[in-house]
Amino acid sequence: MKVVVLPGDGVGPEVTEQAVRVLRWFAQHRGLDLTLVERDFGIVNWHKHGTLMPDETWAQIEGADAILFGATGSIDQQGVVPPEERRKGSLLRMRKALDLFANLRPVRMPPALTEASPYKPRITAGVDLCFVRELTAGMYFGTPRGVETLPDGSRRGINTHSYTEAEIARAARFAFQLARTRRNHVTSVDKANVMEAGALWREVVGRIHREEFPDVGFENMLADNCAIQLARAPTRFDVLVTDNLFGDLLSDAAGAIIGSLGMLPSASLSAPDAAGRRRALYEPIHGSAPDIAGQGIANPLGAILSVALLLRWSAGRPADADHLEAAVAAALARGARTGDIAAPGEAVIGTSAMGDAVLAALAA
Amino acid sequence: MKVVVLPGDGVGPEVTEQAVRVLRWFAQHRGLDLTLVERDFGIVNWHKHGTLMPDETWAQIEGADAILFGATGSIDQQGVVPPEERRKGSLLRMRKALDLFANLRPVRMPPALTEASPYKPRITAGVDLCFVRELTAGMYFGTPRGVETLPDGSRRGINTHSYTEAEIARAARFAFQLARTRRNHVTSVDKANVMEAGALWREVVGRIHREEFPDVGFENMLADNCAIQLARAPTRFDVLVTDNLFGDLLSDAAGAIIGSLGMLPSASLSAPDAAGRRRALYEPIHGSAPDIAGQGIANPLGAILSVALLLRWSAGRPADADHLEAAVAAALARGARTGDIAAPGEAVIGTSAMGDAVLAALAA
Ligand SMILES: CC(C)[C@H](C(=O)O)[C@@H](O)C(=O)O
Ligand SMILES: CC(C)[C@H](C(=O)O)[C@@H](O)C(=O)O
Repeated sequence: MKVVVLPGDGVGPEVTEQAVRVLRWFAQHRGLDLTLVERDFGIVNWHKHGTLMPDETWAQIEGADAILFGATGSIDQQGVVPPEERRKGSLLRMRKALDLFANLRPVRMPPALTEASPYKPRITAGVDLCFVRELTAGMYFGTPRGVETLPDGSRRGINTHSYTEAEIARAARFAFQLARTRRNHVTSVDKANVMEAGALWREVVGRIHREEFPDVGFENMLADNCAIQLARAPTRFDVLVTDNLFGDLLSDAAGAIIGSLGMLPSASLSAPDAAGRRRALYEPIHGSAPDIAGQGIANPLGAILSVALLLRWSAGRPADADHLEAAVAAALARGARTGDIAAPGEAVIGTSAMGDAVLAALAA
Repeated sequence: MKVVVLPGDGVGPEVTEQAVRVLRWFAQHRGLDLTLVERDFGIVNWHKHGTLMPDETWAQIEGADAILFGATGSIDQQGVVPPEERRKGSLLRMRKALDLFANLRPVRMPPALTEASPYKPRITAGVDLCFVRELTAGMYFGTPRGVETLPDGSRRGINTHSYTEAEIARAARFAFQLARTRRNHVTSVDKANVMEAGALWREVVGRIHREEFPDVGFENMLADNCAIQLARAPTRFDVLVTDNLFGDLLSDAAGAIIGSLGMLPSASLSAPDAAGRRRALYEPIHGSAPDIAGQGIANPLGAILSVALLLRWSAGRPADADHLEAAVAAALARGARTGDIAAPGEAVIGTSAMGDAVLAALAA
């Protein structure tokens, strides 16, 4: 398979390096047929080439089986890249152009990390949930959008939250199918009491449940209540399906449970084509973390666990995915900790030593 | 002063009864000039009178200094009230008609409750933050909104997130002024990296900070990061200002920190008129909680602490407000616990016994 690697900005290159080592391990030891193509992306590419993502990189992506992505800089804060270019080269452009509508964000609480979590162990023990965040519609892409000037000369900012029945339905089907491979329960999250688009979301997901997945446990939940339940009783959730914006906030809130976003992977998937192949982008949830970039202390486990998702969803190798997830759990159980997941008093290792720990556990 | 009391649905009447007892205490013992007018509101009123809120109640509200509100039923789930009537009589109509743009949601962690909170004490000790949620614009009220039929016969749901410079500016000014009476710091929350309306929000709040409140500490934060920081380091926040929808989710997430929403009050305020008087609605954050309604076990402290906000913001009696907040803290310190805030093994009392405990502490 061909994997395009886009390390990106900030800590992106450091964590991606460890993820690539792990991916190579499966090529060397498990017969994974692998071609890696690495390209600059993001602000680093802007400085070198005057564009966030050159056409040649787009061409590589078009022909790839999967993208392994690191992190993208907080462009707004630096202000070096013109808005036009930003849209063209951005992560959002990839999501839309490749139609990556299903954003999977699994959150599992490794028992070894209960002390590092801000939550009490009685809340977190056994947390194992997965968000299916719709990723190609809603507030992120709706039009009209922009800033208009009013008759009195003052301005008004507008964004549009928009969902068609088809957009809702494919996210819902993905969630119900996923639930069947897990604990068979779906929570659909909306704000149907305030938003008409939320009421349509609720109606469509409910209909798909009734007509196509009556065997799957199902509930609706308001988004504000979901924020509370994630803090109070996160073990009650299996699969959560929600829109692009609620998914952004709520999956990050869920991620906080395990103490650090540095641990969390994600997959963004398209529908399968005629040959059954999905377009796919894998990336850790965390951002470019400019404050710690270049120091060799970032947690590579979010990137490494994204490789496990790649093995499962793009390589068709579920046993290898399980093996990698078990290796990460084993490394943690043996006490491997980057700073973000260390409880007070625990010894801390760096980014590449954490990669070593996972490789050692893979080989064990 | 004239206070219109709208107990509403579910546990609303039970908790409001205790809040009214407390309000009466200040009339009897502290010379508060008080006229109380109580009216049915919500689904209970629909069953009795065929409307959620009759015109006579609206007239009472028009002439009132403050509204003390209990809870409103989860109308959608019951489906008894036609949509048209729902809009007419709803909480959202009051917010809009009275122009209650500033929704104050203070969250304080009482030391006595650290064991009931889902968070570890090292995270929660000293949490004392206050949301200023913009309450009359954004996603809740933007147009166009609704469900449209597409050429192929399928449907699309639309809601519009809209903010004018003036709407942003008045929420920002309220937040900066409030911060000066607290720890002098404001965090403005948006999604400026994705939403143009969020970029305008950031620009306007930043300008008001620079030009009018340069003495107040200030930072911008993305909404997804805010969800994480609230879980990880909630003591870093003083005042947070954000839009209607983010404020709904994030203030509930913050509320989860203290273990129960039953403790949390709110005030919804208009701008002051020429005589310096604000329109105002006070209500606990929690909803109608139909599962425990009528059992006498709901926590009345959210409603009672809303009376403290009323004393501060509508009655101009900050010393009485402080006295009431201290009485609630004292009742908790002496071990008074409704079921929602009891740690495993603690003795539990009912709604009116909690009212008794606060009245006893007031008189002590
Ligand atoms: C970087 C940003 C545009 C992005 C988003 O808001 O979707 C990020 O927060 C994420 O969740 O992947
Ligand atoms: C009842 C509902 C319309 C309301 C809202 O979404 O604003 C509630 O959640 C709140 O926060 O006061």
